[in-house]
Amino acid sequence: MIRAGIVGATGYAGAEVVRILSGHPEVKIKALTSSQYVGMPFDAVYPSMTGFVNLTCTEYILEEITETCDIVFVSLPHKLPMQIVPGLLGKGKRVIDLSADFRFKNPAAYESVYQEHSAKELLQDAVYGLCEIYADSIRGSTLIGNPGCYPTSALLPLIPLVREKLLDMTSIIVDSKSGVSGAGRSPSLKTHSCETAESFKAYNVGRHRHAPEMEEVLSTESGKPVRITFVPHLIPMSRGMFSTIYASTAEGVSSGAVRSCLTDYYRDKPFIRLRFDESQPPDTLHVRGTNYCDIGFKPDPERGRIILLSAIDNLVKGAAGQAVQCMNLMMGFKETDGLIHVPYPI
Amino acid sequence: MIRAGIVGATGYAGAEVVRILSGHPEVKIKALTSSQYVGMPFDAVYPSMTGFVNLTCTEYILEEITETCDIVFVSLPHKLPMQIVPGLLGKGKRVIDLSADFRFKNPAAYESVYQEHSAKELLQDAVYGLCEIYADSIRGSTLIGNPGCYPTSALLPLIPLVREKLLDMTSIIVDSKSGVSGAGRSPSLKTHSCETAESFKAYNVGRHRHAPEMEEVLSTESGKPVRITFVPHLIPMSRGMFSTIYASTAEGVSSGAVRSCLTDYYRDKPFIRLRFDESQPPDTLHVRGTNYCDIGFKPDPERGRIILLSAIDNLVKGAAGQAVQCMNLMMGFKETDGLIHVPYPI
Amino acid sequence: MIRAGIVGATGYAGAEVVRILSGHPEVKIKALTSSQYVGMPFDAVYPSMTGFVNLTCTEYILEEITETCDIVFVSLPHKLPMQIVPGLLGKGKRVIDLSADFRFKNPAAYESVYQEHSAKELLQDAVYGLCEIYADSIRGSTLIGNPGCYPTSALLPLIPLVREKLLDMTSIIVDSKSGVSGAGRSPSLKTHSCETAESFKAYNVGRHRHAPEMEEVLSTESGKPVRITFVPHLIPMSRGMFSTIYASTAEGVSSGAVRSCLTDYYRDKPFIRLRFDESQPPDTLHVRGTNYCDIGFKPDPERGRIILLSAIDNLVKGAAGQAVQCMNLMMGFKETDGLIHVPYPI
Amino acid sequence: MIRAGIVGATGYAGAEVVRILSGHPEVKIKALTSSQYVGMPFDAVYPSMTGFVNLTCTEYILEEITETCDIVFVSLPHKLPMQIVPGLLGKGKRVIDLSADFRFKNPAAYESVYQEHSAKELLQDAVYGLCEIYADSIRGSTLIGNPGCYPTSALLPLIPLVREKLLDMTSIIVDSKSGVSGAGRSPSLKTHSCETAESFKAYNVGRHRHAPEMEEVLSTESGKPVRITFVPHLIPMSRGMFSTIYASTAEGVSSGAVRSCLTDYYRDKPFIRLRFDESQPPDTLHVRGTNYCDIGFKPDPERGRIILLSAIDNLVKGAAGQAVQCMNLMMGFKETDGLIHVPYPI
Repeated sequence: MIRAGIVGATGYAGAEVVRILSGHPEVKIKALTSSQYVGMPFDAVYPSMTGFVNLTCTEYILEEITETCDIVFVSLPHKLPMQIVPGLLGKGKRVIDLSADFRFKNPAAYESVYQEHSAKELLQDAVYGLCEIYADSIRGSTLIGNPGCYPTSALLPLIPLVREKLLDMTSIIVDSKSGVSGAGRSPSLKTHSCETAESFKAYNVGRHRHAPEMEEVLSTESGKPVRITFVPHLIPMSRGMFSTIYASTAEGVSSGAVRSCLTDYYRDKPFIRLRFDESQPPDTLHVRGTNYCDIGFKPDPERGRIILLSAIDNLVKGAAGQAVQCMNLMMGFKETDGLIHVPYPI
Repeated sequence: MIRAGIVGATGYAGAEVVRILSGHPEVKIKALTSSQYVGMPFDAVYPSMTGFVNLTCTEYILEEITETCDIVFVSLPHKLPMQIVPGLLGKGKRVIDLSADFRFKNPAAYESVYQEHSAKELLQDAVYGLCEIYADSIRGSTLIGNPGCYPTSALLPLIPLVREKLLDMTSIIVDSKSGVSGAGRSPSLKTHSCETAESFKAYNVGRHRHAPEMEEVLSTESGKPVRITFVPHLIPMSRGMFSTIYASTAEGVSSGAVRSCLTDYYRDKPFIRLRFDESQPPDTLHVRGTNYCDIGFKPDPERGRIILLSAIDNLVKGAAGQAVQCMNLMMGFKETDGLIHVPYPI
Repeated sequence: MIRAGIVGATGYAGAEVVRILSGHPEVKIKALTSSQYVGMPFDAVYPSMTGFVNLTCTEYILEEITETCDIVFVSLPHKLPMQIVPGLLGKGKRVIDLSADFRFKNPAAYESVYQEHSAKELLQDAVYGLCEIYADSIRGSTLIGNPGCYPTSALLPLIPLVREKLLDMTSIIVDSKSGVSGAGRSPSLKTHSCETAESFKAYNVGRHRHAPEMEEVLSTESGKPVRITFVPHLIPMSRGMFSTIYASTAEGVSSGAVRSCLTDYYRDKPFIRLRFDESQPPDTLHVRGTNYCDIGFKPDPERGRIILLSAIDNLVKGAAGQAVQCMNLMMGFKETDGLIHVPYPI
Repeated sequence: MIRAGIVGATGYAGAEVVRILSGHPEVKIKALTSSQYVGMPFDAVYPSMTGFVNLTCTEYILEEITETCDIVFVSLPHKLPMQIVPGLLGKGKRVIDLSADFRFKNPAAYESVYQEHSAKELLQDAVYGLCEIYADSIRGSTLIGNPGCYPTSALLPLIPLVREKLLDMTSIIVDSKSGVSGAGRSPSLKTHSCETAESFKAYNVGRHRHAPEMEEVLSTESGKPVRITFVPHLIPMSRGMFSTIYASTAEGVSSGAVRSCLTDYYRDKPFIRLRFDESQPPDTLHVRGTNYCDIGFKPDPERGRIILLSAIDNLVKGAAGQAVQCMNLMMGFKETDGLIHVPYPI
């Protein structure tokens, strides 16, 4: 059994890490930190977990957490992780950071949408934790920059096609929709249930921080600078993320080639379910609470385009589940450990 | 006071026509027909309206309705209206049809996505009831094909730009999202609250019947055949429709020109609210229960694109409200009669 | 036209007062105060109202508001109103206070569940604004303590029966359920949409502040001290309140007598709809956005009890609508002015 | 491994049995029958389960199911089970019936609220499957009448108190609230998402079929005929049931005695969580997807009453989970087998 700590355990993503690790056969949770709930039993913050999690939330103290833990999940708002991750690594710990702080290779790209980076020297060694794409690098890593939820939902369907040069890289449009839990647990007007009910809207149109994250990965994969159009929207529901992706195929590429590429690439990946049959298209309800990414595909030959659809649970495959999947790869556990249970029918 | 009848009054769109006309200063409702609720008081079907609507639902009988009514709103599934509209017109009645049956000029386009048309001879004289665009034609008409909800939400932001030739017409992508009431009141698994809750999904990808409707209008407006990519999605909420529209600007067109075009075109239109300020973007919650179309705009200059956003209430501006607005124009009433009341804060 | 000011206009109840008065034929809104949004246009806080409300939020200054307004609606958290109402009255203004500060006759009862009262001398003259019960007193008043939402929903069905001595006053149990808007607009964990979705719970069991409010009124009406059991619950929806009330009938009272009493009492009250027919029981959806209280009744003769059901919109009949109804009575306007528009079918 | 069949596997309760058994360490599912989806893969009906359930739905044929299965879960509407259960028992199979058909000892009570019973001879041997109360009888049984969801939520808090004679049995009032999934998967207006949203209402007031079920059990436990007042309500959410129970204590009984009784009785029961601390009261969100019954308690000494609160997931503890718990007891498995996984934080 390895010993794990979760820093920022009482946010939604952190709490999902707690949930998953509590049922993980190879892990024992040893520390839960929370700036807001120090001294409070974790299950007083999340009463559903009474009987499963008996730890009390503590303050983050480097020495304490490194003494009790082998691996640390950092689930804090960006800017904070860069201040604590160097210390954790210095003590020889493995770190999976769920924020944006270690997702970028290029510090300038990070700084253009976040703020100054105080631990730039770690960026080259940090591995972008998109498991279905970068499993080999993840296996040997000590620091993971866990992908954002929007990038996960867009890159999983796109990257196999980009690698095979099937797409016109100037044509990519990602229209994404997220449940409210993506906005976090901190109360604000935008998460107030009376303001979200019956509300559907776009936000941060054309300037969301996840666009540069996607662009850096797509540029690396395609070998040249890529700019995409990305519009996120807010759905009046708790969990789930859906991306509808539009792209023109490269000259001479058939829709059959696109289909085959995805089928081949994802043949044996345990957390990808291809939903090409129109009678069962991707649906956030069908991935709720799971680590699946369900992917759909529809050619639009008259307009020379393809349409990709993807559904994930933003808190699981888009955050905590993928983080645990990264840990499984890093530690040599079974990739699916702790991440498979029968999904609910509704 | 003119006398109005609503055929198919107990569906959601029909009931909204009843609601609006019940508060209309120039109209008296004389007949409500319903195939399912014959003999039942209308307010037993919709108890919220107790005290406002005292009529009983009747069977549709041509002679009866033409005797008591001057204008007839037909709110039936497509294919049925084409069977009754000729009779109504033959009796000298004005007709506003909320189905697709009289929206197309080209019967082949209609028949390619619906079924054979049995009243083709009426298509040339029917007027497409998009009020902000075709007010002049609507004023002189006797038969209105009331636009679909998706086309309304997409065409209102697009047409001014198309008329000014500001867009690359091969580049249009319409990503639309609708509340569940768009699926109608007939119970089915897809409207079951346990199947819609926490569910967001695309449906009829690349083959929804509203695409040809939009394409016919856009082709007419641009003077050449236009094909668009259209993907509708279902939002887990009751009312509201949101369209996110992507297009490349035509050679040499600036985003400022796009902005000016919309500002100029919609300066005095009572039901259009331009929401170009990013702090107050279009939101379905802000148009709920109203006849407004709130329109947003964001240039995406690095990718050479513009992004248009629009929010409507699918049952009002997307159906019943627009139908009444058409009536107001046809009858020479004030365009806003019956359609203005202070919206709810939430 | 009278001139009205709303103090605390940007909370949900205040915003509903703004909505209703914006459409009121006899009123002109002259001032909107808000501690949080000073200097901000009201429609930037509530964008749905763009085009209807053009005022900017201001700080509360006694001299300014008394100069521009004849009547003031105070929609602030309890304890604040008692500090400003004396000043307003001193300037000869009429005041309708939506908080608890002027609902009690007995300051000790108020102080037992709120805090010390600094304007006790006004309590005897303040009138409890339950319009269907106290219309006569309201007509002559200058200060209204507008009833709480829970008391409104419980007292309207109960008081006619209490006056006729039809109930065993020791037996009353009020099981109430409220939509989330009742918790106000201030963001908190309990209004976070991810915490309310799929959540139904009781809160403040046996110690909610509205119980003493109900008990004081019921004691006055019955002529002896009454204690009730009251349990409020939170429903995962925005608007609406439902009370299920259990009581034993007094010795020898038949359920027919109960039925007749309610029917007689509410025969001509414009905002009460009796829903005794089981096929159309009270439902929050049917009163949403309206000033109605729909009341249902079911005898349970084998257990010697009756069951009363009531549905209101907590923000309208439970707050802003009733406040305007009070104003209508105070000012001699038509009781329904500004409060009647056709309800939505859904 | 025992072999299980689920008859009526595509309703919500049936599908939950499928979900739970798919993860059960001692069970192999061998047959899924469905009248509506014969020949369709189960995961085409419930796509979330793709990868977990590979069976195809079949017609119910006695010989086939008895050949392949050792135990049969029957999840059909009442009246159908009584037609097939005798055949299953005749072949020596164990049967857990989720309908009302085998919940009553007294056929007249059943027939008064359902219809004629055609297998009355089985009622005496059938065991009412309320696991925390009747575990010993369940262990030796071959036929289980699985309790209704409302009775489960009410009887678990009540029975320990009834057995200890702590309550005035004439005083019990059960005010229950259920999520929409309790109405089943068959589409109908009452489950339409536009009709349930923002709707809270009581239904079948004073005449719900679950009242006699509760009354029979309470009468048996108390040794004399008991009549309760029971009002069920519909909550606009998918899963979850909440009961608020009011009762007077018996002469001389203190609230401390009530508290101790529940604490003692439920000390080691794995699926009961006592939530007496007011800061963490029972909440449907906290039991969602689990087999827990969370129970709260609040004395109301001034009125001589107690208030009991209970929260369950209507499809799990209220149906499928309790059915599997019964199976575990019948078969000598660990009581919690298949029923424990870490609950979601939200």
